[in-house]
Amino acid sequence: MKKHNFSAGPCILPQQVFKEASSSLLNFNNLDLSLIEISHRSADFVAVMDEAISLVKETLNVPSEYSVLFLQGGASMEFLMVAYNLMKTNGKAAYLDTGAWSSKAIKEAKLFGDTQVVGSSKIKNYSYIPKGYSIPTDANYFHCTSNNTIFGTQMKSFPSTEVNVVCDMSSDIFSRKINVSDFDLIYAGAQKNLGPAGTTLVIVKDEILGHTGREIPTMLDYRTHISKESMFNTPPVFPIYVSMLTLRWLKENGGIEWIEKRNNQKADLLYNFIDSSSIFEGSAAFEDRSTMNATFLLTDNSLESEFNKMCLEGGINGLKGHRSVGGYRASMYNAMPLESVQVLVDIMKELERKG
Amino acid sequence: MKKHNFSAGPCILPQQVFKEASSSLLNFNNLDLSLIEISHRSADFVAVMDEAISLVKETLNVPSEYSVLFLQGGASMEFLMVAYNLMKTNGKAAYLDTGAWSSKAIKEAKLFGDTQVVGSSKIKNYSYIPKGYSIPTDANYFHCTSNNTIFGTQMKSFPSTEVNVVCDMSSDIFSRKINVSDFDLIYAGAQKNLGPAGTTLVIVKDEILGHTGREIPTMLDYRTHISKESMFNTPPVFPIYVSMLTLRWLKENGGIEWIEKRNNQKADLLYNFIDSSSIFEGSAAFEDRSTMNATFLLTDNSLESEFNKMCLEGGINGLKGHRSVGGYRASMYNAMPLESVQVLVDIMKELERKG
Repeated sequence: MKKHNFSAGPCILPQQVFKEASSSLLNFNNLDLSLIEISHRSADFVAVMDEAISLVKETLNVPSEYSVLFLQGGASMEFLMVAYNLMKTNGKAAYLDTGAWSSKAIKEAKLFGDTQVVGSSKIKNYSYIPKGYSIPTDANYFHCTSNNTIFGTQMKSFPSTEVNVVCDMSSDIFSRKINVSDFDLIYAGAQKNLGPAGTTLVIVKDEILGHTGREIPTMLDYRTHISKESMFNTPPVFPIYVSMLTLRWLKENGGIEWIEKRNNQKADLLYNFIDSSSIFEGSAAFEDRSTMNATFLLTDNSLESEFNKMCLEGGINGLKGHRSVGGYRASMYNAMPLESVQVLVDIMKELERKG
Repeated sequence: MKKHNFSAGPCILPQQVFKEASSSLLNFNNLDLSLIEISHRSADFVAVMDEAISLVKETLNVPSEYSVLFLQGGASMEFLMVAYNLMKTNGKAAYLDTGAWSSKAIKEAKLFGDTQVVGSSKIKNYSYIPKGYSIPTDANYFHCTSNNTIFGTQMKSFPSTEVNVVCDMSSDIFSRKINVSDFDLIYAGAQKNLGPAGTTLVIVKDEILGHTGREIPTMLDYRTHISKESMFNTPPVFPIYVSMLTLRWLKENGGIEWIEKRNNQKADLLYNFIDSSSIFEGSAAFEDRSTMNATFLLTDNSLESEFNKMCLEGGINGLKGHRSVGGYRASMYNAMPLESVQVLVDIMKELERKG
């Protein structure tokens, strides 16, 4: 049965990536060896790492003064590494609180210095992105989360500031055009638009590192990984390989320009229907709606079991909303085809017609 | 061409594991979804994590007061986490220095407290395991490395002490019988006998945690991962799944008793030939020789290019020794069949006959 995978992450990746990865597990590069049994220092794997890094640089047009790293530990480890590497001794950092992930980042930063929340939408259950906040000019950095999977909100612009800007782009990197030079450090867990769970992408402007006056454990120091080109220790071979394949797929199809257009089409299709519907309503503020994760509710809860049944029969997977918002969440990451969103919208229309 | 994979790690895993993992990348559990596109909170993946943890407990007969964790970051991250979690404020730890990995562990511990090296074989290029050392009774813990891949040495026994014993078993866990209760914390990067690169196994006695008087960042605190059963954040799905498959393979074939016997047979076959040979010699002390990694040299370097050529033609992969020892290293991890070691020994014999 054809499945339409709306999972929030780990999530859908291109079918051709699954096929190639599956094949490489049996015989990689015609070596008569599996991808996962070769040395990470072998020429064949070093080429994978090099290509993955090059494709990130090319796809996002990363300026030369930035390093691209593939690490481990997910965004959760970055919450801590960012503060460890950027918060000065007796320093200060400014955080924008837009949801569960921001809150976790703020918690870790507090271990390292004065952590100021310059804006928060917590009192309205994070249903919008705060605006009009100001960033102290003496902050060591400003931290924000570009897309909030749970609440379905997305930053449409980023503050212009002299302060270093750090952004957690876990759930929308590679989905739209960004100017890397507007940021000083970008990080992203791979398991949305980049690859499977198990690796973390970091893009960091080298010159912002090494100014904290703090001793940093080797593995937590970005400079360790920069100097060893993400090979200080054994990297997560398979997640990096699949990320490389996914970046190849993106490039072959037209890169960011192509995918941004496609993502907007998918989001428009779903949001336009929601806005015209009498039985569904969006749960995020109109202007802050995410193109990646559309959160919505049934206005009449009695239709819930019928809708769930229709989704199941239609092969719709992973549509249940996060418990802190309720309702539904359609995650429409890069690899999701427009057709899958159409299948969902057709089911929603059919429910409205019947209801 | 049939390859004989003697790689030091990432390394050979069972062929049936490659096949099953390859298939699950296309369609996992007949879900019509790839293993790597489903939520880590889905029943299907939670069952994988539960089975992986259960198989570790069963295979190693882990006592109930220990927790089993699957983390990220490799042994290199554990070097730091061990000290963060166990070294008390103004505390002291005792380390046995048996090679490159021990040295890196010692370096990280020094950031957290008084780190005493109680024994070292550094002056003889780590060619043996120090003995007769004493462990200060006021140390917060004693740390050792059970097997040294680079130098081909292995601890055949462990000190009996009242002090907490921490052991890096990255390269020989699941290869032989151990009494988990002789240790308080065991850790191991997966990429030898357990699975592919990208996850780290930790077995920890719960009661030793929480006594440092130090605030520990969330992701570095073992208690975080114990309380969330290794699901605090998105786990490395694929490496854990392949580890689970490898543990199933080990169990189906007879567990530790079976594999220990097989590993001894392989090591005996190779070492017995080396000891009888006039053109090869072992580089590690006889009594400390590793069953996992046999390091050896050609007594006559002029035979090197001929030997390398014969290995290449025979499908022998990954035999080059580490640069700090030179010569050759035959890594014979769990999944390597006796037949592959026989192929290598036959080539070595043929060289001796010709030479």
